[in-house]
Amino acid sequence: MPAKVVGGAVRIIAVGDELLEGRTADTNSRWIQQALGSHSVQVSLIQVVPDRQEDISLALDRTEAGDLVFVTGGLGSTPDDMTRDVVAGWAQVELIEDPSVKRQLKERWEKRGIKSSPGAVRQSLVPRGMTPLTNPVGSAPGLVGRLRDRMLVLLPGVPQELQGLLLPAVRWLEGNGALPKPRRTMLWRTAQASELSLVRSCSGIRGNFPTLDWSWWLTDWGVDVRLVAGAGKAGGGDLAAAGEMVDEILGRLVYSRRMETLPQVVQRLMLDRNLTLGVAESCTAGLIGGSLTEQPGSSGFFRGGILAYADRVKTAQLGVPAELLVDSGAVSEETVMAMADGCRKRIGTDYAVAVSGISGPDGGSPDKPVGTTWVAIATPSTVFARRYRFPADRQRNRLLTVAAAVDSLRRVLEFGDEQPPWQPSDSWCRPS
Amino acid sequence: MPAKVVGGAVRIIAVGDELLEGRTADTNSRWIQQALGSHSVQVSLIQVVPDRQEDISLALDRTEAGDLVFVTGGLGSTPDDMTRDVVAGWAQVELIEDPSVKRQLKERWEKRGIKSSPGAVRQSLVPRGMTPLTNPVGSAPGLVGRLRDRMLVLLPGVPQELQGLLLPAVRWLEGNGALPKPRRTMLWRTAQASELSLVRSCSGIRGNFPTLDWSWWLTDWGVDVRLVAGAGKAGGGDLAAAGEMVDEILGRLVYSRRMETLPQVVQRLMLDRNLTLGVAESCTAGLIGGSLTEQPGSSGFFRGGILAYADRVKTAQLGVPAELLVDSGAVSEETVMAMADGCRKRIGTDYAVAVSGISGPDGGSPDKPVGTTWVAIATPSTVFARRYRFPADRQRNRLLTVAAAVDSLRRVLEFGDEQPPWQPSDSWCRPS
Repeated sequence: MPAKVVGGAVRIIAVGDELLEGRTADTNSRWIQQALGSHSVQVSLIQVVPDRQEDISLALDRTEAGDLVFVTGGLGSTPDDMTRDVVAGWAQVELIEDPSVKRQLKERWEKRGIKSSPGAVRQSLVPRGMTPLTNPVGSAPGLVGRLRDRMLVLLPGVPQELQGLLLPAVRWLEGNGALPKPRRTMLWRTAQASELSLVRSCSGIRGNFPTLDWSWWLTDWGVDVRLVAGAGKAGGGDLAAAGEMVDEILGRLVYSRRMETLPQVVQRLMLDRNLTLGVAESCTAGLIGGSLTEQPGSSGFFRGGILAYADRVKTAQLGVPAELLVDSGAVSEETVMAMADGCRKRIGTDYAVAVSGISGPDGGSPDKPVGTTWVAIATPSTVFARRYRFPADRQRNRLLTVAAAVDSLRRVLEFGDEQPPWQPSDSWCRPS
Repeated sequence: MPAKVVGGAVRIIAVGDELLEGRTADTNSRWIQQALGSHSVQVSLIQVVPDRQEDISLALDRTEAGDLVFVTGGLGSTPDDMTRDVVAGWAQVELIEDPSVKRQLKERWEKRGIKSSPGAVRQSLVPRGMTPLTNPVGSAPGLVGRLRDRMLVLLPGVPQELQGLLLPAVRWLEGNGALPKPRRTMLWRTAQASELSLVRSCSGIRGNFPTLDWSWWLTDWGVDVRLVAGAGKAGGGDLAAAGEMVDEILGRLVYSRRMETLPQVVQRLMLDRNLTLGVAESCTAGLIGGSLTEQPGSSGFFRGGILAYADRVKTAQLGVPAELLVDSGAVSEETVMAMADGCRKRIGTDYAVAVSGISGPDGGSPDKPVGTTWVAIATPSTVFARRYRFPADRQRNRLLTVAAAVDSLRRVLEFGDEQPPWQPSDSWCRPS
């Protein structure tokens, strides 16, 4: 069971007309939940309310003494931004101009050659009893402090500003006894395995360590497994022992033990060894290249590729023999291997990734149903290929193809090309 | 001012532990807001609560007599799914087995060769006073009806099931007087124009028609302009008159007047005329190809392309002269035109799109700051090119490049290639 915050619950109030009009989705609550993850406290209520004094005030009334309350949005410099005024009114405390915030805002404006405005002055007002936290990204400071027996955390609604202030805010809460001690956590980011297969693999370990909290999160790349130590003293020891067992069981399914993405891992592995990469994409038509170049610095390893959507492009640009396409079809082991090999040679790279599949909804046959997808990895000495059968709709099948291709490359880079990067136990590859 | 629902406000209660743990974001509220759009009612509170009897009940207590209340989630067949029980308890009405729901569920299970389970039986229970709506996608029916003076709409949490039930639910509410009459609306989906420039362009019209409601929504492709007729009798006439003026002012900025995406529009234009397309992508590295192939049927026009991230690939695969890259640089009018022309010839298509830009954060110079991006469109008779200066971070600059490239192609297809598809007034293209 997750611990409670000291005395109460965690509640989030997201302020903003745009959140209620459907223009913007509330993504900030997710960041707050993630930042609180290692404290093993759970949010018990999120309220999304418009930029209106009475609605914000009512939302504050719906919190209880002892609660830890996050309020996001409404800290900017326009008249719509009224969170700090409403909080001060609700708690019946004055708004005081904070000289250090005022100085920081002034310096910020001067650096940009802007004269200070009445709005800027409003941003230096702090409800008595609250502490300002410097905003590393924008102008509005975060505000933390205990008012009316709640611990309040006011954060800007702009996602980057909120994200920049979350760590300082959580540190401040820890230092002021508003959060239970962070528990030790371990993370395994996995790809090419279903949530169900991971839960099953870990069920024995779960039975042996009942003090640990497990969680399973779907990501763009696969499933994250998170293990949080129990509250008692035994917790730390249990975590270490269970962690070793998880390491062993998950093995090559794990692409990272920290919060990095699969393209970040591949980029690191390629740059470390000064390797180059090309891609040959049929069904994904560029999504693999697009995701491998998300990170700055990707030009250090990514050279380019061929989008071979039509068969004629596979032949002309990748050198896939026309008779091979006729005999085996575009979605086949032979074709995808020829695509990878051709790409490596024509783009002139150390490695190449190729994919060819039937994303749907049309194009399936009894032999090759929708979701049938081949992935190949060409290395300086060999070419590996594997068939997947993805179970989803067109959009999701294409994203699963990207994840499978990038993770298969990651495995070859990590474990070498003496053996194929797949194992019969990989749940994504199992014939359906 | 948006109308109120009959007597009260619209409130959404989203039920689900996964929404509070940060595993999943609440996207359902946005769908509900969109479905209510033409009724011009606004949601005034969203509450996200865990799968717990007392929390759901408390959330219902926070609604008021006269409200229209949507409750999403908790209608499945597991013990966690308790929405229908909590609502019945809160309203102090019985749960009654609905024979027609039971029969539908039974048929559904039999079709799939599954025996009915206790969970399936629970899904046929309906709080007395509510009406079941058949779920076109899954098993749990939607439930609508007036209880404790609120109009309640219970919908499943699975997004596809919710989306499938929203239209029948809104129809039912209309038929039962729980929503104001839908107002006539007009939609303009625009690209290559900033929200600010659109608001400014329309400011004169807005002044002339004070009865109309305007809204501006950022999308993946640009900005949607939505115009809703006023409540009075004059509303319809005003809408028609204002709509004509908006048509004239927005002109070529508009890629669609209905809810279709830019890739859908391009696909329609290409297929209608039996044309073929290739792409040559540098900074976007596949994102243009990926987005143009989102729709089923894209293989009817999309042939493939070259990801020319490295200069050597631009030379070898697209035939860009090496000395041109040295003299003008990879991000230049000459290079991007050579890329488009080379792509059209090598992939063998009627049209080609090429992009080359500096997405950032590194690679900028005083001459060519981060965000500098060239887009070229090659047609059977000419090549057009235009420089953009995007103001955002790497990720956003890449997405803006995709939108600019695809929309520029759309304009050439729509207006012909006798003149360039850009105008000095396009706000995205203005030199910064």
